[in-house]
Amino acid sequence: MNIKMLIYILGKVLLIEGTLMVLPIVCGICYGEWPFLVYYVACAAAYVITGYLISMKKPKNMTVFIKDGCVATALSWVVLSIAGCIPFMLTKEIPSFTDAMFETASGFSTTGASILTNVEAMSHTSLMWRSLTHWIGGMGVLVFLLAVVPMTGGSNMNLMRAESPGPTVGKIVPKVRSTAKMLYLIYLAMTVTEIVVLAICGMPLFDSICSAFGTAGTGGFGVRNDSFASYAPHIQVIVAVFMIMFGMNFNFYYYFTTKQVNKAFKMSEIKVYLAVIAIVTAIITFSVWGQYSNFGESLRHSFFQVATIITTTGFATTDFDLWPSVAKFLLLSLMILGACASSTGGGIKVARFQIMFKSVKREIQSYIHPKTVKKIHVDGKTVDSDVIHSVALYFFIYLLIFVGSMFIVAFEGHDLVTIFSSVAATFNNIGPGLSLVGPTQNYSFFSNVSKWVFIFDMIAGRLELMPLIVFLTPTTYKGIIKKPRKVQS
Amino acid sequence: MNIKMLIYILGKVLLIEGTLMVLPIVCGICYGEWPFLVYYVACAAAYVITGYLISMKKPKNMTVFIKDGCVATALSWVVLSIAGCIPFMLTKEIPSFTDAMFETASGFSTTGASILTNVEAMSHTSLMWRSLTHWIGGMGVLVFLLAVVPMTGGSNMNLMRAESPGPTVGKIVPKVRSTAKMLYLIYLAMTVTEIVVLAICGMPLFDSICSAFGTAGTGGFGVRNDSFASYAPHIQVIVAVFMIMFGMNFNFYYYFTTKQVNKAFKMSEIKVYLAVIAIVTAIITFSVWGQYSNFGESLRHSFFQVATIITTTGFATTDFDLWPSVAKFLLLSLMILGACASSTGGGIKVARFQIMFKSVKREIQSYIHPKTVKKIHVDGKTVDSDVIHSVALYFFIYLLIFVGSMFIVAFEGHDLVTIFSSVAATFNNIGPGLSLVGPTQNYSFFSNVSKWVFIFDMIAGRLELMPLIVFLTPTTYKGIIKKPRKVQS
Repeated sequence: MNIKMLIYILGKVLLIEGTLMVLPIVCGICYGEWPFLVYYVACAAAYVITGYLISMKKPKNMTVFIKDGCVATALSWVVLSIAGCIPFMLTKEIPSFTDAMFETASGFSTTGASILTNVEAMSHTSLMWRSLTHWIGGMGVLVFLLAVVPMTGGSNMNLMRAESPGPTVGKIVPKVRSTAKMLYLIYLAMTVTEIVVLAICGMPLFDSICSAFGTAGTGGFGVRNDSFASYAPHIQVIVAVFMIMFGMNFNFYYYFTTKQVNKAFKMSEIKVYLAVIAIVTAIITFSVWGQYSNFGESLRHSFFQVATIITTTGFATTDFDLWPSVAKFLLLSLMILGACASSTGGGIKVARFQIMFKSVKREIQSYIHPKTVKKIHVDGKTVDSDVIHSVALYFFIYLLIFVGSMFIVAFEGHDLVTIFSSVAATFNNIGPGLSLVGPTQNYSFFSNVSKWVFIFDMIAGRLELMPLIVFLTPTTYKGIIKKPRKVQS
Repeated sequence: MNIKMLIYILGKVLLIEGTLMVLPIVCGICYGEWPFLVYYVACAAAYVITGYLISMKKPKNMTVFIKDGCVATALSWVVLSIAGCIPFMLTKEIPSFTDAMFETASGFSTTGASILTNVEAMSHTSLMWRSLTHWIGGMGVLVFLLAVVPMTGGSNMNLMRAESPGPTVGKIVPKVRSTAKMLYLIYLAMTVTEIVVLAICGMPLFDSICSAFGTAGTGGFGVRNDSFASYAPHIQVIVAVFMIMFGMNFNFYYYFTTKQVNKAFKMSEIKVYLAVIAIVTAIITFSVWGQYSNFGESLRHSFFQVATIITTTGFATTDFDLWPSVAKFLLLSLMILGACASSTGGGIKVARFQIMFKSVKREIQSYIHPKTVKKIHVDGKTVDSDVIHSVALYFFIYLLIFVGSMFIVAFEGHDLVTIFSSVAATFNNIGPGLSLVGPTQNYSFFSNVSKWVFIFDMIAGRLELMPLIVFLTPTTYKGIIKKPRKVQS
């Protein structure tokens, strides 16, 4: 394992985190929140200095194997979360380490599950930092690193692969650095657009910025206790549309920027994703019609909730825990489906389901016509059999972690819907679930053991399982500790 | 498609079903239930005659392709269920066709879910027939057919493959007919043993026979309204042990009969299966301790319920719906895990989980040491990559049918636990679930639409998905209807 490289990367991550804390600091200055500011300034300074010192010397060997990529990614996210939660503890707004870690991991992993019972009591500085973690986590800190730091050596693709969502990671342009830059530029442009649109539509600027961060990262932290219920209907619709846009495969936007509009509109994943949104919204609209004063209101709430759940954002305009079973069941299914690959959304991803559907179709065909072995194509490209195998295994590993998490959480004795939906909502990076973790509730009542299970699930879900699993597998580190030399006789 | 062969098989199936009805008829004579007997005799006669006439002429071409095997199996089970439910309707004990079909499909698929609110009001004749369906369904009617009817041609393996549970079907002896005979002999011997043991232990003979049928097929229909709660503790323990034995891979017994005891005790699937039973029983025993008067009682109930659920039988000695969450969660997990391959039990099967676990282990290894590609071995034998792929897809198809069924049932508006567990309990051929379908409840309150979903799930679960899917895929029948000849000009 390339340990020098690992330390270098962790240093850079710390440096970036410290630098990004400037935003909440500026926010704090605007609101004159001096008692809180002190801690943020101290943390930012500490991270920047430590990070700078650690990563000052660039290692000569910049090779990153898949294994190294996994460990670097997992470790970066752990460091990111620990460093990120310290300000919350220092300001005593979240004094417990477990709670602060939960909130920060929930932020970076773009989950949006909270242990806070009263969000509105938080300082603006902390709320801004909390929402910013979503934005950083959405596109990924290593992708950011790759975008801003010149890293030679072709193997840094393994870093991007470990952090980026989806069954395959394509470099949209030949160089990893250019791809990372391109992704962040699109991401930034869309975020700024949302801030401006929301501000124009009458949302306070602070709310606009935080909401845009929450939308962009498909996170879901809000700045009001009722999430989005008390914002004006037109603002809810705008946010819903932006959520759907951030849940789309970013290659779509890349094709747009490079004037390959044809290619963009041919992406089958986008079509399936939008079709699912339309169909589920329609079914839910009719099933909850009776609970709202008119069709329009029912449609708006259904559309918002479908958008927020499929993109794994987790905002809410209504208490969908009170909806009929079929609506709740559909939302639970969307939680697991998730958004598009190469988006900022979580869940299993539409692309993986597409590949599996095609595999099943081929399997059925092989029963009917055993001699015709067909290859699987998505958007005209052949899907490699290794990828199919990995995707199929992904479902199984997903199931194992899901069931294992439920088992531990079940010991607390809550009802089965709470147990299932709390794991579903954290593992798929959504936030609110059903029953005791419904949209009007929070995660504060869980024991510390369960909270750590959720912290694991949130990060594992965001990094798509493998990096964290490889990171935690003992054989990964075999051979790092040098064997004592044989005494020569 | 070999239609002549198909008709021949269906005729034989009907002939077998009619012949087996002799047992409930004899039972009815013993109890003097003449008004019921008439209908059973009429049905039996009709089936035997029709079956004989249809299958009188053996087709010359006995080739059975995989596709044909699937269609023959699926169709046999549909015919079996329809023919089997007619006596219930004629005796007016279950007048509705949907209900009678539900009860019979539940019987043959060895599910044991019932729409009956008062089992004890049924005639002995019907109760015997109801329990006998479990016994027939347990080992399979086509396997029986292969055992008793000489079928030339090597391709009849495709019939056995379609009906037998597990990821791979091995002929334990080179000839399909000998394998089928061997399986049925073991099955019969074990069933008779159980009847004798139960009778000796003081269970009434009628109850012994019905209980043994329910245990052998891992079905779960009982003859008392409280299932097994009112039987003596030692009888409960005996039945639990027999359930576990019928849930074991039958190759285990085959190795015993052929004095290859070493091989039998090396079967890893059996080891995993027994280990799971021991561990889960231990956890549940401690978690429910408080609900029973002493440790022994808690252990007995836990052991019985774990045995009944993992083997997918579905008897009950206590209302486990009142157990704490962790116990209920574990039982739900066992429902999906299921028993061993090549047993009479349902669920996904231990063997499939073993293969997937090993695949996951290999995948993790491929991240850590990308250059070492290892093969997967189970019990010293290499698992073919096609089998691994099929098993992985099995999980996905399973998920699709599960979610699709839940979606339809959800429209009835019951709570999510009822929706989930009713599908889990029928699709995995268990019977009782949780909440509204808990062990003290039944399935009578569901709408006809939901009942047909369950009927589909029960048969799909018993036949392990593919046969029913191929049967329902339109392209299977492509080319059967001859295309009109081109008019030659």
